[in-house]
Amino acid sequence: MKAEIITIGDELLLGQTVDTNSVFISKVLTPLGFNIHYKQAISDSKQAIIESLDLSIKRSKLIIITGGLGPTKDDITKHTLAEYFHSDWRWDKDVLKHLESIFSDRGRELLDINKQQAMLPALCETLFNRKGTAPGMLFDIQGVWVASLPGVPYEVVEIMEHSLIPKLKSEFNIKPIINRTLTTALIPESKIAQKLEAFEESIKNRFSLAYLPSYNIVKIRLNALNSTITQNEFDQKWEKLIHELGDWVVDTTDSPISEQWAKILIEKDFQISTAESCTGGYIGNQLVSVSGASTYFQGSVVSYANQIKSNVLNVDADLIQKYGAVSKEVAVAMVNGVSQVMNTSVAIATTGIAGPTGGTEEKPVGTIWIAVKINDHISVKQYKLRGTRIEFMLRAFNTAFVQFKNLLQHSK
Amino acid sequence: MKAEIITIGDELLLGQTVDTNSVFISKVLTPLGFNIHYKQAISDSKQAIIESLDLSIKRSKLIIITGGLGPTKDDITKHTLAEYFHSDWRWDKDVLKHLESIFSDRGRELLDINKQQAMLPALCETLFNRKGTAPGMLFDIQGVWVASLPGVPYEVVEIMEHSLIPKLKSEFNIKPIINRTLTTALIPESKIAQKLEAFEESIKNRFSLAYLPSYNIVKIRLNALNSTITQNEFDQKWEKLIHELGDWVVDTTDSPISEQWAKILIEKDFQISTAESCTGGYIGNQLVSVSGASTYFQGSVVSYANQIKSNVLNVDADLIQKYGAVSKEVAVAMVNGVSQVMNTSVAIATTGIAGPTGGTEEKPVGTIWIAVKINDHISVKQYKLRGTRIEFMLRAFNTAFVQFKNLLQHSK
Repeated sequence: MKAEIITIGDELLLGQTVDTNSVFISKVLTPLGFNIHYKQAISDSKQAIIESLDLSIKRSKLIIITGGLGPTKDDITKHTLAEYFHSDWRWDKDVLKHLESIFSDRGRELLDINKQQAMLPALCETLFNRKGTAPGMLFDIQGVWVASLPGVPYEVVEIMEHSLIPKLKSEFNIKPIINRTLTTALIPESKIAQKLEAFEESIKNRFSLAYLPSYNIVKIRLNALNSTITQNEFDQKWEKLIHELGDWVVDTTDSPISEQWAKILIEKDFQISTAESCTGGYIGNQLVSVSGASTYFQGSVVSYANQIKSNVLNVDADLIQKYGAVSKEVAVAMVNGVSQVMNTSVAIATTGIAGPTGGTEEKPVGTIWIAVKINDHISVKQYKLRGTRIEFMLRAFNTAFVQFKNLLQHSK
Repeated sequence: MKAEIITIGDELLLGQTVDTNSVFISKVLTPLGFNIHYKQAISDSKQAIIESLDLSIKRSKLIIITGGLGPTKDDITKHTLAEYFHSDWRWDKDVLKHLESIFSDRGRELLDINKQQAMLPALCETLFNRKGTAPGMLFDIQGVWVASLPGVPYEVVEIMEHSLIPKLKSEFNIKPIINRTLTTALIPESKIAQKLEAFEESIKNRFSLAYLPSYNIVKIRLNALNSTITQNEFDQKWEKLIHELGDWVVDTTDSPISEQWAKILIEKDFQISTAESCTGGYIGNQLVSVSGASTYFQGSVVSYANQIKSNVLNVDADLIQKYGAVSKEVAVAMVNGVSQVMNTSVAIATTGIAGPTGGTEEKPVGTIWIAVKINDHISVKQYKLRGTRIEFMLRAFNTAFVQFKNLLQHSK
């Protein structure tokens, strides 16, 4: 079942906004058996909306549009769709009631400009938006479904989960094409491909592999190439793939590393804390980003300045003087300090140079020491990580996870 | 000068990867006068590449393609382009030399699969990639430029900045259409639009306004509608817009809030620290994300567990007992504690309920107390923030910035 996404908004084309809506929509529609085969990002212009719809309607059965439903003059999606589908207008009383209640809750006056949001094309079915003021709309144009959603990410989530997906499930009966993804870490893509050369040859015509490298992580997706391939046949190849990769596999899912980490911490009943210098709290923040983090996360100390390393983490100032803040010795002292201060069984410490400035010949930008402590076992390693500041932090997070997993295995 | 971007990769359509490459490309090409009027995301399939190129070549003068240049079998962009443009092949000796040096630096063997990356279509000019193994390619097809770049974000940055942009600048002489963006905060989009109704009416046909709401921030972009509008005429309207908005404007640029914050901290010679509970280190991490953060950022304490609030931040345990961890009193104690421990002139503290669980009737999910301290002045406020965990953190960061700016103004 072919589907596509059209995101509307000059801000997407000017690079002012990162499009996370289409990512979410893809993630939830793919497992339902929809094949999202195109995405288009277009400007807030009537002509662009019409041109992209002309194209999409020819090649897809489901088209999801996001953006351009706000109350301001630059929001033209609703009027353009009404015109495109030759629709009259209607007032939606439920939406109006919802608007009145939102504005009264927020203690704000309901302006005319806001009231207009309850006026909808007569041809569409309302996709109710409990979390915001702009309702979604669903048009059924001779069997092609065109859904128009607002551009605010959590409103997209709300409407997809509670309104559109239930309708899609009851209307379409789709057989998904099977695919599954696993996670490897710290092994380069080309090295993996070399190892899998014979395997890849043996599956061709029925399956394909895709390599998704991302900051010291390579995810590998096994795709069935058509819907005649059974779960049983797929599972055999999947097991073979895992066997071929051996201990390069860190997880047999493509869950975010933060969730993989959370899973282990909860299973093992570990408490974790972090002491971070160059990663600036990124590792702790990633661990907290998972709902329910309070069951395993105690806290972090971001000791960007050296005196904090001494004052809060009890790192001996002489140690910093002697070896430098970016050293094996200081990383170990930090991990010991934070596990003590926070009273945790697991601790992570980082000290390094995120760049772009601050590097020296001996300790160039990208140098990082990562120390991991699990009960009485400590592992400390140096890495050289590439990329911008935020990419450096991402790599550090992924790398720390692998170091943690390895220490866990070896300290059994 | 019309331009568009084609991103290739099933991972984009499956929602496994967030596309930041096209965001970067838009950001750097727009100020040069390119009008990015379409983006397409397509699958790793020959047919999709050909269909999207057919379309793009008709409507744009510059087409930038990202992805599908890796060494593995799912990377088909290079061969598809060579076929599409009927090109022979050539070995690029500089690329081969570069590959040999990269692999020897990383202590890895140069495999045949890697060597193949130095084989390029004879028709293209090489866009040298100092940071990676896949070179970019530039085709000039009767005046339409088609550039093909790898999918790795920092390699895209490298090739754009050092190879493609210099070529574009020397080849095309473009007059940019003027636009400029400012930042407002904590005022709803519709309220701003109401205030600007007369202004918007007065500029129509020559200028347009765009509203870009994002987590308690609304950015407003003033667009000139054609290239006959002079800088002088634009500036007059711009000043008028700023005047209309008054103190709703927090910055007359669209810089990220982290950079706006950094600018003030550096100007005022402030040192900052954060004590974070519900925001899990997000605020500190955003402050550190700016290059040169060590001039103003001392550190953070993420006191997710209550005992850390007491042990590290010296928050009286009785206070937590009496008022609860999510309270005005504890927020104030945290901000005092961290400014003392970290010895900083400015401090931020947060305590709240990020959700989705943990809310009560009295303190529902989304409740947050933010305390800001500048020297001896403290401001403490309660907010109700909406969205997922990460959206909650984003809103908290933006809201803390506005609270900081207001306190700064009132404590002068």
